[in-house]
Amino acid sequence: MPTPVFAPVGSQATVKAVSPEELRGIGISIVVANTYHLYLRPGIGVIKAMGGLHKFMAWDRALLTDSGGYQIFSLAQLRDISDQGVIFRSHIDGSQHLFTPEMAIQFQESLGADIIMALDECLSHTETFEAVEQAMKRTHKWAERCQQSQTRNDQALFAIVQGGLFPKLRRKSAAFLTSLGFFGYAIGGLSLGEPKVLTQAMVEETVALLPENKLRYLMGVGSPEDIVESVARGVDMFDSALPTSVARKGGFYTWQGRHNIRNSIYSQMEDPIDPDCDCYTCHNFSAAYLHHLFECQELLVYRLATIHNLSFINNLMNKIRDVIINGTFNTFRDSFLVNYQPTDEELRLAQKQKWLDARNRNQIDKSE
Amino acid sequence: MPTPVFAPVGSQATVKAVSPEELRGIGISIVVANTYHLYLRPGIGVIKAMGGLHKFMAWDRALLTDSGGYQIFSLAQLRDISDQGVIFRSHIDGSQHLFTPEMAIQFQESLGADIIMALDECLSHTETFEAVEQAMKRTHKWAERCQQSQTRNDQALFAIVQGGLFPKLRRKSAAFLTSLGFFGYAIGGLSLGEPKVLTQAMVEETVALLPENKLRYLMGVGSPEDIVESVARGVDMFDSALPTSVARKGGFYTWQGRHNIRNSIYSQMEDPIDPDCDCYTCHNFSAAYLHHLFECQELLVYRLATIHNLSFINNLMNKIRDVIINGTFNTFRDSFLVNYQPTDEELRLAQKQKWLDARNRNQIDKSE
Repeated sequence: MPTPVFAPVGSQATVKAVSPEELRGIGISIVVANTYHLYLRPGIGVIKAMGGLHKFMAWDRALLTDSGGYQIFSLAQLRDISDQGVIFRSHIDGSQHLFTPEMAIQFQESLGADIIMALDECLSHTETFEAVEQAMKRTHKWAERCQQSQTRNDQALFAIVQGGLFPKLRRKSAAFLTSLGFFGYAIGGLSLGEPKVLTQAMVEETVALLPENKLRYLMGVGSPEDIVESVARGVDMFDSALPTSVARKGGFYTWQGRHNIRNSIYSQMEDPIDPDCDCYTCHNFSAAYLHHLFECQELLVYRLATIHNLSFINNLMNKIRDVIINGTFNTFRDSFLVNYQPTDEELRLAQKQKWLDARNRNQIDKSE
Repeated sequence: MPTPVFAPVGSQATVKAVSPEELRGIGISIVVANTYHLYLRPGIGVIKAMGGLHKFMAWDRALLTDSGGYQIFSLAQLRDISDQGVIFRSHIDGSQHLFTPEMAIQFQESLGADIIMALDECLSHTETFEAVEQAMKRTHKWAERCQQSQTRNDQALFAIVQGGLFPKLRRKSAAFLTSLGFFGYAIGGLSLGEPKVLTQAMVEETVALLPENKLRYLMGVGSPEDIVESVARGVDMFDSALPTSVARKGGFYTWQGRHNIRNSIYSQMEDPIDPDCDCYTCHNFSAAYLHHLFECQELLVYRLATIHNLSFINNLMNKIRDVIINGTFNTFRDSFLVNYQPTDEELRLAQKQKWLDARNRNQIDKSE
């Protein structure tokens, strides 16, 4: 798997709206599924009995399962958290469950992904230093227990660096976890609504302390501009529901920035949404057709928009690898950032809040 | 286009949940779009400006547009109907519009399908003889005017036989319309909730009076068992939203009958939903996976279920053509009907009513 790489999110064993063939066609090399979601539905045992997650979802390339730590702390209703583990209520039916670090590993061994994640405690960025430090220490203990409870030797276990927006804690977390020696290291607890400048400061702080010969994985990022900025700081791998989630709301990426197909300027446009794009959607359909399908809420359009956005991100990653190899990454980065119109920061935070609120109201959207 | 043939419904310029490539891959040779829907959204002029409907929806095989008569009488709110035409309110925004036979042809010439339909007046099967007779007579006058207003000579115009559940009127309608000489003849106003035995009686009555060397098209049918019975009576072509609409509710066809993937017996089944099926869905995914996706309302499953049902219907049509050619249709029909468990008639009518009610409440489902 060449890096830097972007992994689309398929929490419930499907990247929303697209088929495994389409993902392969786009060039996607790794997908991220979620232990919390799959534990609740259809159940870990079902997937194990069906021959594991690769077979269940008909995905023959690399697969990563997140431990579900983030989802337990963001989606579920917490009942109790202790050093032993976390007791929570399902966001689907309110039923009560216990996750321990050992169980997180056992579940992920049953699912059988290529990369598995340690269980972490992930707090909101508005928490105090003391609370974040306590969560970090627990995350460290849990990472050790995850490491000790691994029984399969064909899965790469990654630890997750925590520490919120406190550089001191980030440094401490990176130092401790690398001392244990994992196959790779994730940076967790970022891109949760904090200002982007702080996200990047924390990324910079953390990456610097992670071994260069191991995968450095920034969780929950993201947008084209954040990916470029994070690669500049040394990140090798990303996952985020953003490109697929944005697509289902009509948002699409071009090298000039993010636009929305529902805008009436597209209602009679014979060109594809991005004339420079070679994806299935842009190759076959006019902007007017996509606009029409969105107006009618026709199912096909969620797929077409998702294919375009994942193609864009994948092309971006290909481009990034090229310019790294030929030594022109900084030139590329400058020219990309000059041309690409990011979503306005204030608007972005408002949208993020709206999304988090909607997610709390609407069960369906909770799967990413 | 070999017949008998089944045409999936793509009212809004898309067969719900599937791509043109998938339709081609299944072997679909003709799709039915709808003038009423496309007139309201995106507007006939938009599609004309985009190079016509084939190009707009990227469908290079045969295309039929229904005139919208049925949709005006079933979906829209009628304001006034006269010999001139019909004034109705849009089911989308309540805006007022006029459709005349001449406009129905003009719109369909702009859309540019291969087969176009005359404007008809379609009444409920509960109306009186007098009301149905009046609607039939109007349909006849409109058919003549449609014929006279045609300006393109590269589109096959079909007339629609009406006459409700009255054999006398059906005979009269067939005799009158065939005397005008159309490229093909549709049987309209059936499969609208009346008992199936009456549907077939009317089909039999009508088909007998239509020329054998012209396409005889039964509109709104439908289910595998109704297709087989109607072919036995001489029907060459069918269209119906049933196979796709049923799919999006979890219903799937096998040679043994119709089942529902949401049934818990499928939750741990490693086999595909139909082990005898060679479609993309059955080739790649277990019943357990489809069951899981339905439980999670994941978008991919509406596509996978639609692909299976259209493949089943298309295989059925292939089989029907084979047994007609080798002279064993009656044997096939008997064995099919012995093995295929149709939906119970009472249950079917209750479901149909539920569907009609839901459609009246829910705008999105009105597009088929």
